[in-house]
Amino acid sequence: MKQKTILSKLTAYQQGKQTHEIKEEYGLEKIVKLASNENVYGYSSQVKNYLTENLPELNIYPDGHTSELRTALSKKLAVDENQLLFGSGSEEIIQIICRAFVQDNTNTVMAANSFPQYRHNTLVEGGTVKEIPVKANGEHDLQAMNAAIDEETVVVWICAPDNPTGTLIKGEEFINFMEDCPKDVLVVLDEAYREYVDVAQLLDSHTYIKNYPNLISLRTFSKAYGLAGLRIGYGIGHPDLVHHLNVVRGPFNTTSVAQKAATIAIQDEDFIRETVEKNRDVKNDFCQFLDEINWAYYPSYTNFISVSTPVSGLEMFQYLIENGFIVRPGELLGYPNSIRITIGNKEDMTELQEIIKKFIESNG
Amino acid sequence: MKQKTILSKLTAYQQGKQTHEIKEEYGLEKIVKLASNENVYGYSSQVKNYLTENLPELNIYPDGHTSELRTALSKKLAVDENQLLFGSGSEEIIQIICRAFVQDNTNTVMAANSFPQYRHNTLVEGGTVKEIPVKANGEHDLQAMNAAIDEETVVVWICAPDNPTGTLIKGEEFINFMEDCPKDVLVVLDEAYREYVDVAQLLDSHTYIKNYPNLISLRTFSKAYGLAGLRIGYGIGHPDLVHHLNVVRGPFNTTSVAQKAATIAIQDEDFIRETVEKNRDVKNDFCQFLDEINWAYYPSYTNFISVSTPVSGLEMFQYLIENGFIVRPGELLGYPNSIRITIGNKEDMTELQEIIKKFIESNG
Repeated sequence: MKQKTILSKLTAYQQGKQTHEIKEEYGLEKIVKLASNENVYGYSSQVKNYLTENLPELNIYPDGHTSELRTALSKKLAVDENQLLFGSGSEEIIQIICRAFVQDNTNTVMAANSFPQYRHNTLVEGGTVKEIPVKANGEHDLQAMNAAIDEETVVVWICAPDNPTGTLIKGEEFINFMEDCPKDVLVVLDEAYREYVDVAQLLDSHTYIKNYPNLISLRTFSKAYGLAGLRIGYGIGHPDLVHHLNVVRGPFNTTSVAQKAATIAIQDEDFIRETVEKNRDVKNDFCQFLDEINWAYYPSYTNFISVSTPVSGLEMFQYLIENGFIVRPGELLGYPNSIRITIGNKEDMTELQEIIKKFIESNG
Repeated sequence: MKQKTILSKLTAYQQGKQTHEIKEEYGLEKIVKLASNENVYGYSSQVKNYLTENLPELNIYPDGHTSELRTALSKKLAVDENQLLFGSGSEEIIQIICRAFVQDNTNTVMAANSFPQYRHNTLVEGGTVKEIPVKANGEHDLQAMNAAIDEETVVVWICAPDNPTGTLIKGEEFINFMEDCPKDVLVVLDEAYREYVDVAQLLDSHTYIKNYPNLISLRTFSKAYGLAGLRIGYGIGHPDLVHHLNVVRGPFNTTSVAQKAATIAIQDEDFIRETVEKNRDVKNDFCQFLDEINWAYYPSYTNFISVSTPVSGLEMFQYLIENGFIVRPGELLGYPNSIRITIGNKEDMTELQEIIKKFIESNG
């Protein structure tokens, strides 16, 4: 058949094993999954209480305009309703952007290595990717990324805080980038982990969106909000941009349950505050531990941390999984000899420290 | 910015108004929505009971491989697990197919007019569409569609039973079509309404899939299964085809709730049987009424019926909405002077008959 030739060169996303599979394989009673940067504290109890008592009418199509959530979010964020675009996770918005902008003889620019779906979706849509190595400190090299933009560049991807390094960009640097960037190139600021950033360091993306109509900020309910299983995220951009992206969007791309859950979740600010505070405290503890054992790591503005390992990341992954912890080997993320660890709860991370200590003792 | 030029020529999907909006606008207490071919009998009570007591862990990503549903469905349908592809409704699979097959200098062939997402997604991906008028009886003109295939054709869309005509294709005609169709052209058999077809008329698509590796059958949980709000559907095809489509598919494109609900729903065969029987009885009654008032209609193999109206479909739509019934005007579906009516429950359809009678009396 006549499928695109690029499809033979790409692989489908290979997800990690499900926890029940790993339990069986290694004969473990408990598995702590620290591999996908989910919220280890669950999600708002208000969402749970609502859904168990008020399941939406599942036989009716979702509201394709996402009206209730749109109105609530527009008020909360102080943006116009027509600046908002909803997707099945912010991941689907990446796909929507590629479908709207990428075609033959176009390219997109991204950091190497950052979130792999930027690259994957660009290639599927017939474009090429310019991958610009991150700086030694793990941050995006915005100057080099700007220099890489050419006539055929349609989109630049900036992940801040970045996955998998966890590093952030300074507001001043971002503004400089936007000032230098051609006005006809779309800049995607992927802020999936935004909620975890301290206010002092937070990018003022709402102001940037006002100033730069070629900018879209992506957000998700999959991380701090703890609704990964429901698949819902959103973008904030200029109404004209959002209009074009809506042409590409499937009519009913988010579920009724997800829309309702997200609408309730954004009201529960206590849950987010507690999540972020607990994450910060446990992360600080863990960084102190890493300093003590002298393992290098990128400074993390997220709920995960990328850590250099004295053996390959794959080997460290194997050791940890046999001891009941799933992390992500850096080899799969473009950062060899490292692992990416979701910051778990205090108890689990204390146990993880003990297990790493044992590794060092037996490999010292 | 450099979005595709086609986007300026297309419009985003315009959904009908939400029932609560219409109630307010027309000061109605009750609104019967017969516009989107949802299951008017709801969905399996087993699904409802399960979900209210066992909400999945929403903070965890869905199983991107859809393992539990895949295994259950593979057993039920007697197909291999690697023949199944899951999407956010079968609608997303249409999008996935276009992303995998359509690019500049390609075309797809479809009936005019049939489900509009075939056309929309082909155009978004840079292809053109050859639209072949349906026959006078509303059926796809398979011979003309075959004749329209050229070197640049990558996909042929066959909707059976068709939306919006509700007509079906005979097995023999379909086999003739497949025999004549070039082996390198993908044929998409969209069977979203399959569950409503009597066994005697049912296309033997499982055998066809075995015989023709260039065929994929699309199914959905949005119609007879009554799970439209959860967005889940699937395709059945050759493992090689499914492999290529999975490259394009987003890693987590269906929710945990949808996967679980669908897994339970396929076990509840009584619910589907009752749905189909009630639909058939009420549809027969309604057809008898249409015969009595002498309004023409296409023979329907689905849970909706396309009916010719003595005034424009838009005018009829307006009259009905003011009387508490929402239908779809044929003008929006490419069939002027008609309306598409979802077959409601007995009580509502009896009321609809009275309202139509009044219309005839006051317009006679």
